[in-house]
Amino acid sequence: MKIGILGTGMVGSTLATKLVKLGHQVMMGSRTADSDAGRKWLQSVGGKGKLGTFADAAAFGEIVLDCTNGANAIAALRQAGAANLRGKILIQVGNPLDFSKGMPPTLTVCNTDSLGEQAQREYPEARVVKELNTVNCEVMVDPARVPGEHDLIICGNDAAAKREVANRLVEWFGWKPGNVIDLGDITASRGTEMFLALWIRLFGKFGSPHFNIRVVRGK
Amino acid sequence: MKIGILGTGMVGSTLATKLVKLGHQVMMGSRTADSDAGRKWLQSVGGKGKLGTFADAAAFGEIVLDCTNGANAIAALRQAGAANLRGKILIQVGNPLDFSKGMPPTLTVCNTDSLGEQAQREYPEARVVKELNTVNCEVMVDPARVPGEHDLIICGNDAAAKREVANRLVEWFGWKPGNVIDLGDITASRGTEMFLALWIRLFGKFGSPHFNIRVVRGK
Repeated sequence: MKIGILGTGMVGSTLATKLVKLGHQVMMGSRTADSDAGRKWLQSVGGKGKLGTFADAAAFGEIVLDCTNGANAIAALRQAGAANLRGKILIQVGNPLDFSKGMPPTLTVCNTDSLGEQAQREYPEARVVKELNTVNCEVMVDPARVPGEHDLIICGNDAAAKREVANRLVEWFGWKPGNVIDLGDITASRGTEMFLALWIRLFGKFGSPHFNIRVVRGK
Repeated sequence: MKIGILGTGMVGSTLATKLVKLGHQVMMGSRTADSDAGRKWLQSVGGKGKLGTFADAAAFGEIVLDCTNGANAIAALRQAGAANLRGKILIQVGNPLDFSKGMPPTLTVCNTDSLGEQAQREYPEARVVKELNTVNCEVMVDPARVPGEHDLIICGNDAAAKREVANRLVEWFGWKPGNVIDLGDITASRGTEMFLALWIRLFGKFGSPHFNIRVVRGK
C-alpha cells in the first residue's frame, strides 16, 4: 500500500519505519523535500522509502498519516493541499502541544475545539480519523509493549473510514479489535487531546512513556 | 469523625449518605441552611445528619469535602470561609463543568489552570487534595461497581494530607490501596479535570456512568 506520512519527527519516523518493515511504500513529507530529519530516516531504513514535501506525501499516499505535532501542526498540515487529500483517509495522530511556556506543555487548542476538528474543517473532503494520539509512538506500533488489555480511542465523522482504520490498526500494528473504541464524531478529539494533560503527568510520574489506559466497564 | 460536605447535589448527597451509613457525623452545607435539596437528603437518611451553610459545614468538619460543581463551584466554595478551613484537609471533588452552552459540557477553566488550583489559591492554609472527580459518584463510594482493577488519581501539595486521604478512600469506600495513584502537586488537577472531556464521551457511548480507567504500565 502507498502511505504518506506528514511530519518527520519521532512519531512520523516511528510509524514510517514500522510501515516500511511491513513492506508498504512510504513517503515522508516535511516542509522541504530534503530535510535533515527526512534524510536521516531514509538512511535508517536502508533507502527503502521516499522523501517529499507535505504536498508530495499527501499526493503519494492512498492513506495519509498526519504526524505533525505541536503548536504549528495545523499550519504544517495546511501545506498538504486539499486536492491531494480529497476523498482520502487522513489519520490525524498529532497533538497540539505547546512547549513554548516550559514544562509541562499546554495545549494550543482545547475545550471547545481540537486539532482533529481543525484538520477536518481545513480539509472537508478528507475523511479525518483521529487516533493513536493517546499513546507513545512505540506503543502505537507495538501495543504488546504494554501487557494485557488496554485501549485505543478513535473518532471521526466517516463510519466507513473508521472501520477501515480500525482494521489497519489490527493488521499493521497488532492492536486487538476489541480494544479499539469508536467514540463517535470528530468532536471527540477534544477528549482524546485533552487527555494529554493527564498522560503527561503520568509520564512524569512513571519516567517511561510505555503505558496506556484500559477502560473498565461496570454493571 | 466529623465531616463537612459542601454541595447538596448528587455527588454531595451520595458521599454524605455513605458516610452517615458508616457512622460518621455529617453536615451538608449549601448557600442557605434550609435548602430543599438539603432537607430532602436529611429525610433520606432518617434525620441522621445536619444541615448548614457552606461556612457551617466547613467549620463543623474535621475533614471537608468540596462537592460543589459546575460553573459556580469556586464562588460557592468561597463562602466556606478561610478561618473554617485553616489547616484542614479539603477534598476537592467537583469539576468545572459548564452546561450553559448545551451538551456536551465544556470546562470553565482548563489547560493553564484548574478548579483544584483555584481552591488551593483561595484557601492557601487549607490542605487541598483533588480526587474522586474522575469517576461517577456511585463508583466513588462503591468501586466494586466496576469489576477488577481500576484506578483513582489524587493530587495535592501536602504529602501527609494525600496519605491520609488515600487511607480514607480505602477505609470509607473500599478503594484498594494499590489503585490510588498520587500524581504530584495540585497542578495535576488540570489533567484529572480535563479528563472529563473524555469521560463525558465515554459516558455517552456506554449509556452508563459506571466505568473507570485502569492505568496499565509496560516494560
